Amino acid sequence: MNYPGNVKKTYKSTVNYRNRGMDLEALINDACKYYLDMDIAVIYKKPTPIGIVEVDYKNNAQIKKAYFKEPSTLDYNGLYKGKYIEFDAKECHTKTSFPLSNIHDHQIKHIRNILRHGGICFLIISMCDNYYLFKGEDLVEFIDNETRKSIPFNIIDKKGYKLKYNYNIGIDYIVGVNELYKELILNENTKN
Amino acid sequence: MNYPGNVKKTYKSTVNYRNRGMDLEALINDACKYYLDMDIAVIYKKPTPIGIVEVDYKNNAQIKKAYFKEPSTLDYNGLYKGKYIEFDAKECHTKTSFPLSNIHDHQIKHIRNILRHGGICFLIISMCDNYYLFKGEDLVEFIDNETRKSIPFNIIDKKGYKLKYNYNIGIDYIVGVNELYKELILNENTKN
Repeated sequence: MNYPGNVKKTYKSTVNYRNRGMDLEALINDACKYYLDMDIAVIYKKPTPIGIVEVDYKNNAQIKKAYFKEPSTLDYNGLYKGKYIEFDAKECHTKTSFPLSNIHDHQIKHIRNILRHGGICFLIISMCDNYYLFKGEDLVEFIDNETRKSIPFNIIDKKGYKLKYNYNIGIDYIVGVNELYKELILNENTKN
Repeated sequence: MNYPGNVKKTYKSTVNYRNRGMDLEALINDACKYYLDMDIAVIYKKPTPIGIVEVDYKNNAQIKKAYFKEPSTLDYNGLYKGKYIEFDAKECHTKTSFPLSNIHDHQIKHIRNILRHGGICFLIISMCDNYYLFKGEDLVEFIDNETRKSIPFNIIDKKGYKLKYNYNIGIDYIVGVNELYKELILNENTKN
């Protein structure tokens, strides 16, 4: 049976894996722009790392041949309330657990570096119709203490901060970062 | 007269402006790698922003058509001693002054953003056989108070921190950042 107007609806049978996570990314990009416009935070998505092979300088320096490189850092970084922030956006399509294969080994090494040098580092995970801010510390702790290759959903749901979608902002992740800052100050006060 | 083996040597008559600043950049990239390897700082050069027009997904996702985009942030950013750092490398080939046309308007806006949000921001300028760390604060002050379109060399020489080249490191700019940090702590103590 056809749709009204005799329109045949065709469904894509192939999934474009490169574009996975674009929706989540778009919602985070919107938030970054909002925070910048409202002078709340200065956070940008880094350009996609690309290896350039051939440039046509005679034609407005058009790139004729290039390839995507594997990123060794996370996608977003910047500055909020005087602190260094870095994070990545990950869409998780399985409902039971978040596969660690989503994160490259050198990205995990980078997350450790950021935390050791006093930066704020986390993932924004879209999973089971929720958005979570999942701390780098919790990620590293899981990797160091578990043999499993994926983080069960109940751990993400328990340890992650739930983020809300706001029509005017996108994913209002800075609310989760505020929670993280409160926790940091609490930890510092306990130490002193 | 030809060279031995009857080789005709041809000299390039055109200057490739896109590659200007590559030498300085290489020396800074070396330092970033050194600081990372020695666990001193986590600072990376951002990928060049590129607009992708055409990708051949059938051929290993090779990029067939793309163009260089104007950067709206600075080239390098990262984390040192718990603080956010961002800077750009600029080779200056005139000896009398540093033309402000080297920095795009939105980059200047970005520098103001970084400083207002408590980040460390500066330029590394190669000029008159010296390397200078020139603070974002001094740059903004000059732009706000002067009508001149270029910063005279004597101002850069007076206000900038001279950086040294080190054979094992490259341009050892973190020494200049340390000076900047000392100054910051001094200012904070004066305020309290």
